[in-house]
Amino acid sequence: MTSHSNLSALRTQLSRSGLDGFILATGDEHITEFPAPYSKRLAWLSGFSGSTASVAVLPNKAAIFVDSRYTESVRHQVDGRDWTHEDVSVTTIGSWLAKNAVGMRIGYDPKLYTRTAISTIREKLADGAELVPLPENPVDPLWAEQPDRPTSLAFVQPVELSGKSSADKRRDVAEWLTATAADAFVLVALDSIAWLLNIRGSDINMVPFCYSFAICHKDGTADLFVDPRKIDESVRQHLGNSVRLQSYESFYRSIEGMGGKTVSVDPNFTPEAIFTALEAGGATVRNDRDPTMLPKATKNPVEIEGMRQAHIRDGAALTRFLRWFETEAPHGKLTELSAAAKLSQFRRETENYHSLSFEPISCADANAAMPHYRATPETDAPIGPGSIYLVDSGGQYPDGTTDVCRTVSVGPASAAFRDRFTRVLKGYIALQLTTFAPGTLGSRLDAIARVPLWEAGIECPHGIGHGVGHFLNVHEGPAYFLAYPRPDEEPVAAGMILSNEPGYYRPGEYGIRTENLMVVVERPIEGGDRIMLGFEAISLAPIALDLVDASLLTDIEIAWLDGYHAEVRELLGPLLSPEERTWLAEQTVPVRSFGQAEMASSAVQA
Amino acid sequence: MTSHSNLSALRTQLSRSGLDGFILATGDEHITEFPAPYSKRLAWLSGFSGSTASVAVLPNKAAIFVDSRYTESVRHQVDGRDWTHEDVSVTTIGSWLAKNAVGMRIGYDPKLYTRTAISTIREKLADGAELVPLPENPVDPLWAEQPDRPTSLAFVQPVELSGKSSADKRRDVAEWLTATAADAFVLVALDSIAWLLNIRGSDINMVPFCYSFAICHKDGTADLFVDPRKIDESVRQHLGNSVRLQSYESFYRSIEGMGGKTVSVDPNFTPEAIFTALEAGGATVRNDRDPTMLPKATKNPVEIEGMRQAHIRDGAALTRFLRWFETEAPHGKLTELSAAAKLSQFRRETENYHSLSFEPISCADANAAMPHYRATPETDAPIGPGSIYLVDSGGQYPDGTTDVCRTVSVGPASAAFRDRFTRVLKGYIALQLTTFAPGTLGSRLDAIARVPLWEAGIECPHGIGHGVGHFLNVHEGPAYFLAYPRPDEEPVAAGMILSNEPGYYRPGEYGIRTENLMVVVERPIEGGDRIMLGFEAISLAPIALDLVDASLLTDIEIAWLDGYHAEVRELLGPLLSPEERTWLAEQTVPVRSFGQAEMASSAVQA
Repeated sequence: MTSHSNLSALRTQLSRSGLDGFILATGDEHITEFPAPYSKRLAWLSGFSGSTASVAVLPNKAAIFVDSRYTESVRHQVDGRDWTHEDVSVTTIGSWLAKNAVGMRIGYDPKLYTRTAISTIREKLADGAELVPLPENPVDPLWAEQPDRPTSLAFVQPVELSGKSSADKRRDVAEWLTATAADAFVLVALDSIAWLLNIRGSDINMVPFCYSFAICHKDGTADLFVDPRKIDESVRQHLGNSVRLQSYESFYRSIEGMGGKTVSVDPNFTPEAIFTALEAGGATVRNDRDPTMLPKATKNPVEIEGMRQAHIRDGAALTRFLRWFETEAPHGKLTELSAAAKLSQFRRETENYHSLSFEPISCADANAAMPHYRATPETDAPIGPGSIYLVDSGGQYPDGTTDVCRTVSVGPASAAFRDRFTRVLKGYIALQLTTFAPGTLGSRLDAIARVPLWEAGIECPHGIGHGVGHFLNVHEGPAYFLAYPRPDEEPVAAGMILSNEPGYYRPGEYGIRTENLMVVVERPIEGGDRIMLGFEAISLAPIALDLVDASLLTDIEIAWLDGYHAEVRELLGPLLSPEERTWLAEQTVPVRSFGQAEMASSAVQA
Repeated sequence: MTSHSNLSALRTQLSRSGLDGFILATGDEHITEFPAPYSKRLAWLSGFSGSTASVAVLPNKAAIFVDSRYTESVRHQVDGRDWTHEDVSVTTIGSWLAKNAVGMRIGYDPKLYTRTAISTIREKLADGAELVPLPENPVDPLWAEQPDRPTSLAFVQPVELSGKSSADKRRDVAEWLTATAADAFVLVALDSIAWLLNIRGSDINMVPFCYSFAICHKDGTADLFVDPRKIDESVRQHLGNSVRLQSYESFYRSIEGMGGKTVSVDPNFTPEAIFTALEAGGATVRNDRDPTMLPKATKNPVEIEGMRQAHIRDGAALTRFLRWFETEAPHGKLTELSAAAKLSQFRRETENYHSLSFEPISCADANAAMPHYRATPETDAPIGPGSIYLVDSGGQYPDGTTDVCRTVSVGPASAAFRDRFTRVLKGYIALQLTTFAPGTLGSRLDAIARVPLWEAGIECPHGIGHGVGHFLNVHEGPAYFLAYPRPDEEPVAAGMILSNEPGYYRPGEYGIRTENLMVVVERPIEGGDRIMLGFEAISLAPIALDLVDASLLTDIEIAWLDGYHAEVRELLGPLLSPEERTWLAEQTVPVRSFGQAEMASSAVQA
């Protein structure tokens, strides 16, 4: 089957059900960003493989809506004869429907959309289209090869790594429920459940989750709705008597039985079907923030130390790769996929390796101009002399999750390119060095990283960064460095770990992105009225000094870069071979010496 | 009557109506920030005179909710025996009611609350209190001395000053209505109506508005609902046949007659009662942005030139005052009110003066630590040697509106104070010099002004700035420099005029604020991908160099300050007397010379 015939089949099916159209977004019943294959209905229907998109299908029109990260990729993947490509910053699905679906009945799956998301679309429609919740997703019966739901074994995340027992975490939630006069909280997000119960799973490739729902009660107990095949004796013992195991399928029936109770849910992460089921059963539904979200995001000292350690091991693997790449790439035999495979091999050889945290974004030259391009055998570009190569990758380790990006060149780069590389680096350093007040939203700090780009008349088309979980999601809320505030956004707080990854992309030519994770630390200031916050970089790998135009850097910026490189040498050194250490030392000399050494070596050659 | 007995009377009245409580916010039926006296029900009830607050009255409790600007003032004005004082950033009225009003029936006036505001409160209540819309405001029958609604004459704002005819503006709205398939837009905001129809009024002290509602139709005509006594022949002729005059009282009846039409409203600025009336009449209500808001905020070239000219005249008045203050204050005979009176006198003597744009905030020493303190005869503090004096003021002129703040000292200030003054100035300059991309929200740029304060461990407790209207509101949306994004916020765009006013306040000691208005201009960048935006200061008055610690300024900051002062001298010179010109020249010497001149003069004295 092709996406063209899938689209036709869906239209036939809709018409039989008395519907004119259907809307669908990426994601599963848990609003998971990178869900299991069974839920990739949008990819089956449209051919689009990216992580975030929506589609609208009407009798004679269909449209796909993506953000700026995917405007390039969507052109390659989604057939323009069947689909119009829309940029959500210009046209939202709601405004598109208001124009194109007047008087139509449009179905949607209420288990896949939050109530907030559906309300936002509905508000735009006025007396245009009608949105109809469907009892079953119409794609599922059509998708013959739809994979089964995963059934991997869950496993325990020991308190030595999590820093806090599940009983203590559940007690905190119970105290909050009691203080705010609610009876229970319904947990839908897979990372919230994993964090609260100190369990992990392998249901999703590269994300250690176990598909389940949970209900936390005000007495500190919980119901866990999970396929019983996933729970072995060790996990059963770990969960203990206070966590009642129930089947995954019984979840919706169970919440219909909560009549008379005040049940709290997070409207930003709860499918509309859960509201409907709770309300149908007579429960009083209250909207709150997911009470696990902030404690999960603000890592405790054990988690922070684990993240630091994981980053040292992970940084050694990346540094090993960068040295290997510098030797191999000039021969012109590498490709995006073969380079990525080598990097993944170095990571797999790392102590305590669990999995990658996402498929490496390994891209050269024009491909790298698409910020979230993923190489496939069809697009796999060769890398050789003159190439600009960007690699964004990370690993999952039981003590932490990593996500890091570097851009390098094969041979000397042009002055124009070095100007752009340096502007991006200045943006990175601007955010890295920012001192800020507790209570500041990350969407406001995002602007600070952009100023050096804006001053050069250029822009980064994606958010400057995102939170990262502790052996959990590589994109974790509720703090983000984004150009627009999110409804669930919370201020950046001490203990959070966020990425700092400004980029610049020149269509058809190259992409530049430099990314480290940073931990938010308290910064006392002499003579100040209050303790402020700041960032410490924890990702460790050399930043390509041969791409830096040092004349564009201030003394403060140079001091940061030299200090960072000294830390890279010091922390990675013990994990590297003598040859690797020597190479790293050359790569991380003080910025001003680097220029001199280069000049001296040119002089010798001349 | 005292606010204590007013509160008792309201409770008796509520109890008779079968209600347990009542909530009330500052503002009138047009969601006006500084409304006419008839609407100051909250002040009558609580004693609070500030511009923004909410109250909740229950049988045995009452609370007032204010933001950080007013946490100091509310302590002085609102009797703590009757009222608890709540900081809205900690406790919202919704969360307070959820806790204190369980099971109660709480009334509110749906003509004073937007539907968004009521929904936000209602969401917090779950099965707690019930919010009941009331047909009449219960304060009005109790308030014996409630002023009448104003009946001032409206007047024409000629196209020579507005830059665009009302017919052209109405045609733009009509084209938007047609393009988006709506029949009409209901205008509630007084500044939107004044801008659209090119009329002004004197219904509100210092804000040139005429109380009215308007409906814009897709044929370019409009209905204006206004007291007929306010419309003389000149305004009638100016409005012409395309604007139908109707009585103010007939507005709600009239919108109930819009059944069958698609009527667009702005949910952020439309009272709930308007939704109810439209829906009761059978209209389809669509939520949109007020279509006049962006064109009103992005001033046309005629408006920008008018603003510049008004600022030159206004800046001469302020500079005259600052010189007078420097001579008089050391005698120790001035007070906050007498100084303000003198400043207002200088403004009144300015060419084309219409009115003040707000009552001057004239405050010394500890009073200035309350960011929006207003001097009264009871609080009027003396000013003398050693005083720190802050004055924030502005004027309304037919060609523009001004709003400017300066902080000065009477005699030398301490090194510690100069450190703080300089940090605030660095914050001002940081925003002033920012280059940014089109599409950037002001709440993100706000952070840039704070970085120099954050680095010193201090914070500005209010937003860094706000939009300003053209002979309209001194606080104008939809762009703001605020610490939190607003739901109605739109990106900062070329032609907007915004204030830049960071401050620092040391309770019990002093306040510092430096404010200029800035116009947003396009900034082409050589070699860049796109045109960026930047700011040009249009307020003109010297910044006190004797309070600047030049050692804390970078060369770039000093260059900006010297350049700004050169512009102040050049533009104000022709309006000043020779003595004033000489004084201004001394005040605005290059920063580094200022230090030298001071040292030289100390040497001569020694």
